[in-house]
Amino acid sequence: MSEVFQKATLAKQAAPVLNQLTTEQKNAALERMAQALIDRQDDIIAANKEDLERGAANGMSSSLLDRLTLTSKRVEDIAEGLRQIVELPDPIGDLLEEFERPNGLLVRKVRVPLGLIGIIYEARPNVTVDAAGLCLKSGNAVILRGGSDALSSNQKIVQVLHDALAETDIPVDALQLITNPDRNSVDEMLRLNGLVDVVIPRGGRSLIERVVKNATVPVIETGAGVCHTYLDDGADFKKACDISINAKVQRPSVCNSMETLLVHQEFAHHYLMEIADKLIAAGVEIRGDMRTRDIISGIKEAKEEDWGTEYNDYILNIRIVNHLDEAIDHINRYGTKHSECIVTEDPDRARRFMLEVDAAAVYQNASTRFTDGFEFGFGAEIGISTQKLHARGPMGLPALTSTKYCVYGNGQIRQ
Amino acid sequence: MSEVFQKATLAKQAAPVLNQLTTEQKNAALERMAQALIDRQDDIIAANKEDLERGAANGMSSSLLDRLTLTSKRVEDIAEGLRQIVELPDPIGDLLEEFERPNGLLVRKVRVPLGLIGIIYEARPNVTVDAAGLCLKSGNAVILRGGSDALSSNQKIVQVLHDALAETDIPVDALQLITNPDRNSVDEMLRLNGLVDVVIPRGGRSLIERVVKNATVPVIETGAGVCHTYLDDGADFKKACDISINAKVQRPSVCNSMETLLVHQEFAHHYLMEIADKLIAAGVEIRGDMRTRDIISGIKEAKEEDWGTEYNDYILNIRIVNHLDEAIDHINRYGTKHSECIVTEDPDRARRFMLEVDAAAVYQNASTRFTDGFEFGFGAEIGISTQKLHARGPMGLPALTSTKYCVYGNGQIRQ
Repeated sequence: MSEVFQKATLAKQAAPVLNQLTTEQKNAALERMAQALIDRQDDIIAANKEDLERGAANGMSSSLLDRLTLTSKRVEDIAEGLRQIVELPDPIGDLLEEFERPNGLLVRKVRVPLGLIGIIYEARPNVTVDAAGLCLKSGNAVILRGGSDALSSNQKIVQVLHDALAETDIPVDALQLITNPDRNSVDEMLRLNGLVDVVIPRGGRSLIERVVKNATVPVIETGAGVCHTYLDDGADFKKACDISINAKVQRPSVCNSMETLLVHQEFAHHYLMEIADKLIAAGVEIRGDMRTRDIISGIKEAKEEDWGTEYNDYILNIRIVNHLDEAIDHINRYGTKHSECIVTEDPDRARRFMLEVDAAAVYQNASTRFTDGFEFGFGAEIGISTQKLHARGPMGLPALTSTKYCVYGNGQIRQ
Repeated sequence: MSEVFQKATLAKQAAPVLNQLTTEQKNAALERMAQALIDRQDDIIAANKEDLERGAANGMSSSLLDRLTLTSKRVEDIAEGLRQIVELPDPIGDLLEEFERPNGLLVRKVRVPLGLIGIIYEARPNVTVDAAGLCLKSGNAVILRGGSDALSSNQKIVQVLHDALAETDIPVDALQLITNPDRNSVDEMLRLNGLVDVVIPRGGRSLIERVVKNATVPVIETGAGVCHTYLDDGADFKKACDISINAKVQRPSVCNSMETLLVHQEFAHHYLMEIADKLIAAGVEIRGDMRTRDIISGIKEAKEEDWGTEYNDYILNIRIVNHLDEAIDHINRYGTKHSECIVTEDPDRARRFMLEVDAAAVYQNASTRFTDGFEFGFGAEIGISTQKLHARGPMGLPALTSTKYCVYGNGQIRQ
């Protein structure tokens, strides 16, 4: 029996136990997990050193090494993240609808856990703890498959969490980590219909595409973000300037940062040069279409493939458009349905943009960087869904639940 | 360019137009579609004759031929179904949540169409009209792939609907029918990521399994129903009797009918013989476990494979259990997470059953036959979801929608 099948089976068997726990029992377990991480941070940091040394020997880039690194401060932040999940309302058992039918049947729609959630992710070991905390709090068992680069860290973290769970009401088996670094172990997990209720990939585009292509279990797509900001003819200059710069440079490595700036020709004529100067001063490389290069000299040409690229870096495409329709068409063609913004003072054009642009989040006069569970007030998130089924946008705890109809009768039969 | 790709592309292009229509525009189009079906029923019935003759020549069973047959009455019922969809509330644009963040951002979560929905189904031509009506009313374009047995009927129906749509605000291209009976056309549709937003299979288990296995686009699983009724020690005899018989024989061919009756040993001792007599009198063949055969003589043994079989026929498995836990374990092992019932007067045991049984609908003291969009008051349904993601149980119009966050700011940027 393979590791994946065995661990998924154990986790699935633990799911019904978890489903019957009270919020207090689950919170107490999360609290103990947080304390264990803090108490045993030296063990975790030592295991993390093994990953870092292996990474350095394999020529891992300094930015990836940085993401992988755990320090005392970072472990404490991770533990604090768990404590924030304790504070979140427990969605399980929530009564979503209640109605009585003419025949006297009482129908109640209630929130229930999904069951067993698979999470496939890359180098950051903090995801191991976040994902475990969110899944367990929402009453789900979880099977984690982290990147092989972080394997030593992840194994130690899960060992610490297992030791903590052993002293709580959450069954230890409800949390599983795949340790076989073989790619086949991912593919096997993607096909465990009947055991795994949903798989959520967290990572780069190639990981997500591989999961979508190979999975037969349901998948929630997350993450990829080719986000646009459109500066309309009716835009306020200061807002246009602030939002464009914030969306690009406040944190370019994340999915909700801007990759392409679309500018109405009239607005461009008056203001593009000034905005571009600020972007360049902030370290941004600009690639433009022909008309943009007429205004900003000495920049590269934005090529066809650039419009669809998620740079996650200090690079920005700029295109000048004739009107709102051209901006909407561009976004619906090249965007990844993540976060899109119009800067305008014109309510009609804002209304059209928000209706016609097909994305999880559409903004009028605010940075796309706000698409985030914390910023929306949901607390920690398991990811940002870019698909339309089940959950769209930042996914808090309710996105990790399903529903059930409970129907109460008094002997009713169908005629 | 293949037929599937071409038609999906046309439908996808029509989706944004549909998204901008008012409820009145959509309802007027559905009304015209209904009238066109009535006006041109002779054409439709003539096309249906071709299917029936081909079916008879190919040795199609009389029950399948009956399902395939269109009469004047049936066409009028189908048209009436469209008019019922007109009466349903339009979910598009519904405001689901609204909140203001401390930084002044106003966040509104609104209902939007999914985009392009693919429906794959089998012989009944009424599905062609139901699915078209439900998808269009919820602002979605739709691509239909019906069974080859009903191809002539479906082609004529879609031609009539297209002629009707041509005189409305719904673009004709928003409704597409795949006419290539090649199986590859289904597989191609299942992999049109970026064009098809969801595929919903409606039909038997083999069709659904094939779709789940081959699709890379999101799927909503429907239908398969191995449903149980558990007669608890605390059951009222009359309710137990009425519900068991209704769940089995009122319409055995459908997914929410009962396949297995589980009976507490004490209740069985007193009442099973009497209930079995009534079932047998109603034409039901009973297959039992050992203890059942001790009580009811002369019946077949229920074999391991029988417990997981959806008979859709006048056949019923009966098993005697020692206690509630055994009933719950049996259901969670052999059920398809569709509809499950406990007959009991004991509120604690009912509560445990409804919490611990993992199914879309769980009943206390009512027939599982009630799991149905009309019976739940949703109006027409596109199917009954047996998966946990996105929609679970009878799927009305809201199950054919997604959501979008519309965020209104005043120049907010992220710190």
